Amino acid sequence: MKALVYAANGRPSLEERPKPIILKPTDAIVKMVKTTICGTDLHIFKGDVATCATGRVVGHEGIAIVEQVGDNVSLFKPGDKVIVACITSCTTCSNCRRGMPSHCSDGGWVLGNTADGTQAEYTRVPHADGSLHHAVKGASDDAQLMLSDTVPTGYECGVVQGKVKLGSTVAIVGSGPVGLGALVTSQLCSPLQIIMIDLNEKRLSTARSLGATHAVVSGSNVVEQVMQLTAGRGVDTVIEAVGIPATFELCQKLVAVGGTIANMGVHGTKVDLHMETLWDKNITITTRLVDASSTAMLIKLVESSKLQLEKFVTHHFAFNDIEKVYDIFGAAEAHNCLKVVIEF
Amino acid sequence: MKALVYAANGRPSLEERPKPIILKPTDAIVKMVKTTICGTDLHIFKGDVATCATGRVVGHEGIAIVEQVGDNVSLFKPGDKVIVACITSCTTCSNCRRGMPSHCSDGGWVLGNTADGTQAEYTRVPHADGSLHHAVKGASDDAQLMLSDTVPTGYECGVVQGKVKLGSTVAIVGSGPVGLGALVTSQLCSPLQIIMIDLNEKRLSTARSLGATHAVVSGSNVVEQVMQLTAGRGVDTVIEAVGIPATFELCQKLVAVGGTIANMGVHGTKVDLHMETLWDKNITITTRLVDASSTAMLIKLVESSKLQLEKFVTHHFAFNDIEKVYDIFGAAEAHNCLKVVIEF
Repeated sequence: MKALVYAANGRPSLEERPKPIILKPTDAIVKMVKTTICGTDLHIFKGDVATCATGRVVGHEGIAIVEQVGDNVSLFKPGDKVIVACITSCTTCSNCRRGMPSHCSDGGWVLGNTADGTQAEYTRVPHADGSLHHAVKGASDDAQLMLSDTVPTGYECGVVQGKVKLGSTVAIVGSGPVGLGALVTSQLCSPLQIIMIDLNEKRLSTARSLGATHAVVSGSNVVEQVMQLTAGRGVDTVIEAVGIPATFELCQKLVAVGGTIANMGVHGTKVDLHMETLWDKNITITTRLVDASSTAMLIKLVESSKLQLEKFVTHHFAFNDIEKVYDIFGAAEAHNCLKVVIEF
Repeated sequence: MKALVYAANGRPSLEERPKPIILKPTDAIVKMVKTTICGTDLHIFKGDVATCATGRVVGHEGIAIVEQVGDNVSLFKPGDKVIVACITSCTTCSNCRRGMPSHCSDGGWVLGNTADGTQAEYTRVPHADGSLHHAVKGASDDAQLMLSDTVPTGYECGVVQGKVKLGSTVAIVGSGPVGLGALVTSQLCSPLQIIMIDLNEKRLSTARSLGATHAVVSGSNVVEQVMQLTAGRGVDTVIEAVGIPATFELCQKLVAVGGTIANMGVHGTKVDLHMETLWDKNITITTRLVDASSTAMLIKLVESSKLQLEKFVTHHFAFNDIEKVYDIFGAAEAHNCLKVVIEF
């Protein structure tokens, strides 16, 4: 089969690989229908992800058809159409049982990291019962592909951790796919304001069309603008959706007393935390690797059209072109690119 | 009257001042019975507290007798013995009504900061109905003096923010009075382990006598020792009770996945936050200025002997000696000093 490999030269390389086989009775082999590229995949190719060695087939998102299941898989059978969650859950370890499969003792972020992933014609999914979801007929494959990682991350790491609620104020720093995932799920919690902040006008325009009440171009007076919008109070929930020190510092300037900074960005370096101004502000800062524990609920919202995800997808490509797609997604803003759908 | 003033030369100075008078109908004038010195007072004399100008009578803790009340004070009358809370609450602004009087629009930390405080023979207490508590007969004055600030801070900023709970693991970095306040109130939540960390063996010995399950002398292998005590998991709740970058960084090394770092320390400078290792650890960091919203509950625990606070007090002095007491409290560890009680 063909697979996209993190090559020894650090580049994405489409190579011939043996088709995966069942290794454990809890495995499933799935035939990929659609996959996509995540910002985290770009981090792998930059060498930022120490757990992912060269030679790895990358990718942790996908829509697929079950091809074969191990003897202990009970919820899926060959022919089932499935959403592959980015998080593998054994369902029985202490972290899985407390709702934190991101830190599963035999799972977590495995696919396209510590085991071969979904940017390949076939994928072996460990702990299939805890790591696959049945796709539904009432929603498009493209929309459901957004439920592998993008939208659960926006919801769990941004909205849930950030305690977005009825009548509150929200700012989202970064209007890329995961920021937009936080935007569309925040909206369903009915905050008073959702202020989207980005450098890119086109991305802010998409954010407006998806329900942002205000869009602020990041620049020297961004703090002043947000303070004007919030009567000087600052923002109850600030969601960090970039992952660099400058944006994390911006969040600290925007948060209101009693508010929360919910980090979603993947950080490669330490940041300055201004405890000299924050120690008495009664704030909360959260981090989280998505648990994909909200996926089943989000599928129902998509199926019932309460959550519309079509605007997340800006480009479609064939899997054979995936090396070129990496170039386009790597310069996503220049190509007005949000999520790319790669079809097999 | 005599009052301890933050003098223009930056030193504590016992001076003659006019007795305070009722300025607003919500004020009370109280005659001080006992007061104490807080680590935060030392910060004032170091020039770390920008809101507190020279000339200010300091102090935000005390046991007192009500001398006179304004026309709108309904819960207190002359002759009542009271605990003066460190936080002034108007009870009606939006922050007071959401349980956050630390950020009251006409209160917060006022006494000994933006208005004259309790290290004086008489004190004007603004918003008396929201800022005083009736002392109880079933507990000593010394124990109740610990409820002005020390123990509510340990409980609210450490235990509540840190989500200490039944069967969890707790580490408290800093075994001074506020760290001990977190210890004794953590204990009532029945965690499995409370690991106390300090440089000072004597303070650790007090912590052991107050219920710490483990005491670790801070040093090069402190992380290793805590990991051994927690089977390599780290600690669910890490309470920072010092307020310097080194201890805040230690907390980041001790926290378990899914855990919380609850900051109690007053910080004068920014700290390094290692987002490159924490972004995917599902952790929470909290800050809080005490709200004194738990004081009424804590009084009942002290009254019913469920909370024993006698060991917090190591020294008694007369108010006339308060300048010298500052020297002793400023070198507290050399004098095996925790809380000093100053009697009028």
